[in-house]
Amino acid sequence: MLDITTIEAAVAAIQRLAIRGAPALGAFGSLAIVVGLDEATPESVEAALPLLETLRTTVGDARPTAVNLRWAVDRTIDHALAAAPGTTTELRQLLLDEALAVGAEDAAACAEIGRLGRELLSEAVNIGTHCNAGRLATAGIGTALAPMYAKAEAGEPVHAFAAETRPLLQGARLTAWELHDAGIDVTVVSDGAMASTILSGAVDAFIVGADRIAANGDVANKIGTVAQALAAHAAGIPFYVAAPTSTIDASLASGVDIDIEQRDPDEVHNVGGTRLTPVGVSASNPAFDVTPHHLVTAIITEAGVLFAPFIDSISAALRPQEGN
Amino acid sequence: MLDITTIEAAVAAIQRLAIRGAPALGAFGSLAIVVGLDEATPESVEAALPLLETLRTTVGDARPTAVNLRWAVDRTIDHALAAAPGTTTELRQLLLDEALAVGAEDAAACAEIGRLGRELLSEAVNIGTHCNAGRLATAGIGTALAPMYAKAEAGEPVHAFAAETRPLLQGARLTAWELHDAGIDVTVVSDGAMASTILSGAVDAFIVGADRIAANGDVANKIGTVAQALAAHAAGIPFYVAAPTSTIDASLASGVDIDIEQRDPDEVHNVGGTRLTPVGVSASNPAFDVTPHHLVTAIITEAGVLFAPFIDSISAALRPQEGN
Repeated sequence: MLDITTIEAAVAAIQRLAIRGAPALGAFGSLAIVVGLDEATPESVEAALPLLETLRTTVGDARPTAVNLRWAVDRTIDHALAAAPGTTTELRQLLLDEALAVGAEDAAACAEIGRLGRELLSEAVNIGTHCNAGRLATAGIGTALAPMYAKAEAGEPVHAFAAETRPLLQGARLTAWELHDAGIDVTVVSDGAMASTILSGAVDAFIVGADRIAANGDVANKIGTVAQALAAHAAGIPFYVAAPTSTIDASLASGVDIDIEQRDPDEVHNVGGTRLTPVGVSASNPAFDVTPHHLVTAIITEAGVLFAPFIDSISAALRPQEGN
Repeated sequence: MLDITTIEAAVAAIQRLAIRGAPALGAFGSLAIVVGLDEATPESVEAALPLLETLRTTVGDARPTAVNLRWAVDRTIDHALAAAPGTTTELRQLLLDEALAVGAEDAAACAEIGRLGRELLSEAVNIGTHCNAGRLATAGIGTALAPMYAKAEAGEPVHAFAAETRPLLQGARLTAWELHDAGIDVTVVSDGAMASTILSGAVDAFIVGADRIAANGDVANKIGTVAQALAAHAAGIPFYVAAPTSTIDASLASGVDIDIEQRDPDEVHNVGGTRLTPVGVSASNPAFDVTPHHLVTAIITEAGVLFAPFIDSISAALRPQEGN
């Protein structure tokens, strides 16, 4: 367990990926605002205002690609301030309530994504996934993994193929662990082996989470995702993206506008204590890639399953008060 | 340096990939026949015959996918026997001469592939590759890497993107090492990061070696190759295969007939001393995949650059005595 009592520790946990997964980043980032308030203990609401603006960027921009982080931080701060708290105690309670609401809504969204995904994947037994978009990446049962949990819960057969997801191996370490822990069969393959596994006919459907989705349905997700999408497309199997609507950034027209985090090349150079590359050789380490919308079969959100043309279905899903 | 004095050691070196790369396997396998003869020291040519037949399969089938191994072993034994040696000394000399010829011809083929590849890649500066098909995989300057060496030799700018090539990391370990050692700039990326690197426009052309090429141009190569071919195709950049004609197995109509070696799942579970996956989780570890011929722009051989329809160009390249 992480015991986070300072903003410095919270931001460090986000940046070293101790907390990762777009929805989990949102829930954690919101709570980090409360930690920041407690740490600074401003004497008045007025004194808290510049602090909150600093926290908005310190926490909200700790990583650039997952939109949920900044979205949740903005939502938590804006909601609390809109209620015009008279004391710092009231302010703290408003921030905490909203942060907990972010987490609770994420858990509910995961459950709904699981329900809808189970229907959509009713014929699929062997399901491929990349990175980790499960219990370890959200406040609930996950996004990409939620349909697998829902299928298993319903007693339906399900077997996961997890791409190991270099460089940080979230598939081999996290997805394999949480599915195995839940009693779901999982086979790990190296990232490069997934394409031929898909092309061999062994995979019925592929499903991933998302870090940011543009208005046209282009999807930023963990590096390597677009390679799996190309293989799914070539094999003619569906490629699903599962994400709460909070992952959609309608302000971006397409994926070319998504800021892709470049991480330390040492993550490529090393695994555990083992240096893989010769000293002096350079490495490139983009943390995410963009899958163009034409490779996406559907986006499974808590507001419904969205199909192409995504520019329309996304816009409809984001329209408030129209029900689902 | 490996000092191989027994057939057991030779086969072990092949199977644990101390010797790897299809052309190098051929040259090494041929020499291993001489080692096998020396080890057994049969008293007569007649006594050597069953020994050679045993060596043909023990060495020739030590790994199933690279056709060069069995091809070179068969060639060496058949050539020596065709000369009807009267003594074991004569037999040994015939085997050794042919084994050295296999290596020398491979080195010459590499040089010619480099020359032809340099012409073909005259406009390319940033060149992607997967696995290792260079000096460490052949008896010469390599196959996929030969055009890079030729470009560098000619003073032309060249920068390699090397996919690390999990699970055994031949790209990160071997390709990065040998290109860097030769003064050629190389950037290592994780296998999953190559697709978006290609799609970003950073890569002008992609080139790989091959372990076996079917009559229709389908190419078996290191696991992960087909994912890179799909990305190259999507990006509209050329995808070249560089291999000596000894890698072509015209007896196979297509890639579906190519036997794909399944290796120990522990290669996926571990890197160096670090266990990646939770205990109890299974892993799949195919060593090769098949890139369908429609994703291949051209096959660069010592007998010329072959274009589609490969069924015709391959057949013409293999036809003896017609010149190139």
